[in-house]
Amino acid sequence: AGGIPGKLVILDQRRLPEEEIYLERTTVEDLHGDIRTLAVRGAPAIGIAAAYGVVLGAVSASGGSARTAVESALSAADFLASSRPTAVNLFNALDRMRAKARHAGLDASSGTEAAGILLAEARRIHEEDEAICKAIGSNGAGLIRDGTGVLTHCNAGGLATSGFGTALGVIYAAFMRGRRFKVYADETRPLLQGARLTAWELSRAGVEYCILCDGAAGWAMRTGMIHIVVTGADRIARNGDAANKVGTYALSVLAEKHGIPFYVAAPSTTFDRDCPTGSEIPIEERSEDEVLAFMGRRTAPPGARAFNPAFDVTPAGLITGIITENGIIERPDRAGVEAAMRWGTAGKVAGQIRKPKPA
Amino acid sequence: AGGIPGKLVILDQRRLPEEEIYLERTTVEDLHGDIRTLAVRGAPAIGIAAAYGVVLGAVSASGGSARTAVESALSAADFLASSRPTAVNLFNALDRMRAKARHAGLDASSGTEAAGILLAEARRIHEEDEAICKAIGSNGAGLIRDGTGVLTHCNAGGLATSGFGTALGVIYAAFMRGRRFKVYADETRPLLQGARLTAWELSRAGVEYCILCDGAAGWAMRTGMIHIVVTGADRIARNGDAANKVGTYALSVLAEKHGIPFYVAAPSTTFDRDCPTGSEIPIEERSEDEVLAFMGRRTAPPGARAFNPAFDVTPAGLITGIITENGIIERPDRAGVEAAMRWGTAGKVAGQIRKPKPA
Repeated sequence: AGGIPGKLVILDQRRLPEEEIYLERTTVEDLHGDIRTLAVRGAPAIGIAAAYGVVLGAVSASGGSARTAVESALSAADFLASSRPTAVNLFNALDRMRAKARHAGLDASSGTEAAGILLAEARRIHEEDEAICKAIGSNGAGLIRDGTGVLTHCNAGGLATSGFGTALGVIYAAFMRGRRFKVYADETRPLLQGARLTAWELSRAGVEYCILCDGAAGWAMRTGMIHIVVTGADRIARNGDAANKVGTYALSVLAEKHGIPFYVAAPSTTFDRDCPTGSEIPIEERSEDEVLAFMGRRTAPPGARAFNPAFDVTPAGLITGIITENGIIERPDRAGVEAAMRWGTAGKVAGQIRKPKPA
Repeated sequence: AGGIPGKLVILDQRRLPEEEIYLERTTVEDLHGDIRTLAVRGAPAIGIAAAYGVVLGAVSASGGSARTAVESALSAADFLASSRPTAVNLFNALDRMRAKARHAGLDASSGTEAAGILLAEARRIHEEDEAICKAIGSNGAGLIRDGTGVLTHCNAGGLATSGFGTALGVIYAAFMRGRRFKVYADETRPLLQGARLTAWELSRAGVEYCILCDGAAGWAMRTGMIHIVVTGADRIARNGDAANKVGTYALSVLAEKHGIPFYVAAPSTTFDRDCPTGSEIPIEERSEDEVLAFMGRRTAPPGARAFNPAFDVTPAGLITGIITENGIIERPDRAGVEAAMRWGTAGKVAGQIRKPKPA
C-alpha cells in the first residue's frame, strides 16, 4: 500500500530444527496466532513482532485518512496485547507504538504517511534491540572464562531477539573474543526450546554444547561441570525479581546451593517500571496438552491432568547480576534496577552498576 | 521342563500407557535385553526379574544333572549382572540366587530338582518384596495428611516392584487409610516414567494427581503446592546417600530450600552394605538418543550431543527420612542405616529408627 510493505516474514520456530519455514503474514490476526502458538517467541522478539503487527494494522487501513489508519493501528495494538501475558517487552513495545500512532494521527496527512511513521518506529525498535543485544553481549562476555561450563535454559538467543540474543548474546560475545568453553543447554520442557532452538543456534555458531534434561542440571552442578548460569528473562520487576521460562527458579536455587554465579541477561525493554516485585508478574499457564502430549502423540493416560506454568519467578536475592545494555546490575535490588534503568531519583548511587571495559 | 515353568511373563513398560503388552520370555538373553531397554524397570522389579532369569538359565539346562543346571544358572546370573549398573537390588538378588544355586548343586539329585529349588527361591524373593512394600507403605502412610500435595519423581510404584510400590506404596497405604491428598508426578525426562507409568498407576488406583514438567517442581514448591516429597531409590549407601532417577537430587535441594520434608522409600534390598558413601555408587549413563529424540522422533539438530546420566545421588544430609520395611530411618546416617539394616555392631542405638504404629 503506497510503498509501505504490508507483509511480515517470520521464521516459524515451532518447526525448528527439522524445518526452516518462513511465514508471510499480512494480518494482525495471523500474527496474534503466531505469538500465541510460539511461532515467534522470546520476550524481545515478541515485542518487535508486535510493533510490526501494529504497522500491519495501520497498513490494512492506510487507503484513507491518517485517523482511520491510526485507529486501525491502535486496535491492532489492543488485540496483540492479549496474545501473551508475561513478557513485558510486548506491552512496552505496544505502548511505544501507541504513543507514536497518536502522534501520527496529528502529524500525518494520509493513512499512508501514518503507516510510514509507524513502520519507521517499528524499525527503530527492531534496530535498537540489535544494538542493545550487542551491548549486553559486550557487557557480559568477560564473565565467561576459558574452559568453563556455562548452563543456560530455554532459548535467549538470536531467535528470541532481533538476531544476537541476550543470554546467548553473552555467549556469542565471549566466543567472538576467543574464549573457548562448553555450553550446557537445558532441553527445557515442555516445548524443548533448549534442545530445538538453542542447540540449533549454537551449532550454527560453532560453539561447543551439549543438551541435558532439565532434571539433570542439578547433578551437573554437583559434579562440577557448571561454573556459571546465564539465562534470559521475560519480565523483571523493579526490585530485580525476574520471570523467565519455568525451570529457571529451580536453577537459581541449585546455583546458590553450589556457589555458582547466576546471571540474567536482559534488555531494558524487559524491565517493568510498574511492577514492584515478582509477585505482581502474571504467570501464563498454558495448555495441559503441552505436557500430556508431544508432537501430537499422547504420552499420559486418558484423563490425566497437568500443571503447566510457562514461567516462574527467580527472586532478586538469588541473582548474582543482571546483564543489561547499561552494564551489570550486581546483586540486584530496587536501587540497582532504578539506577540502571535511570528511573531513580537524583542522588541514587550508580555505583552498583558495573560497566565492564570493552575488550 | 519337568513341571518347572520355563517362561516368564513381563508387562512391557516401554509401551505403557498406550498399550498393555505382555512379553513371554524363555531365554536369559531376552530378559537381559528387557532389563537393559527398560521393559522391566524399577530397582526391586529388576531384582525380582533377574532372580527368575536365573531360573530360566537353570531350566534351559535342566534335562541333565543338577551340576549342569546350576552351572547354567550361575552363568545366567553373571550375564544378567551386566544388564544395568546402578540398582543394587539386581546384585543383591543375583547374589542370593547364586548362593542358592551352589546349595542346589550339592543338594539336588537332578537338573529339574535344582531348577525347582531356584524357582522356589525366586518366588520367595518375589513374595518377600510384596510383604516389604506393604510394610514400607504402612510405615510411611502416616506422613501423608489430608489435603497435602505430595511430590514424587519417576515411578516407584507397583510397576517398579512386586506390585505395590515403595514411594507409591506409601501413597497407596495413606489412600487406603482414607487420607485424601493430591500427588504431583514429575513427568521425569527423558523417558517419562512419571507421565507414563506413575500417572497410569495413580489413575487406576483412583488417587488424585497431576503431571508436571521436572523443571516446574521448584516453582510448585515455591508457590506452596507441595508439602512432602517421596521418591524411591536405586541404591542406598551405608551412610544413607541415595541414588535415584536423575532429577531427584535437585528435588532434595529444592525441598531443603523450602523446608519441605524429603523422604526416600526403599526396601532393605536397595541398601548396599559394601558401599560406604554415594560417591562409590556407579551412575549409569544411557544413550544420548534418549535425550535427543522424543518418542522416536528427533528433536535436536544433527550432530547435537547430550549428557544423559540415568541417576543422581542425594546426600543423606538432604534426606528427612528413609522409609524401610523396618521403620523410618530419621535423618539417615551410617549409624541409622546400620541399625535399620541390622548390620550394626552390638550396642548401636536403635532409637533412630521410628516404627510407626499400625493404623
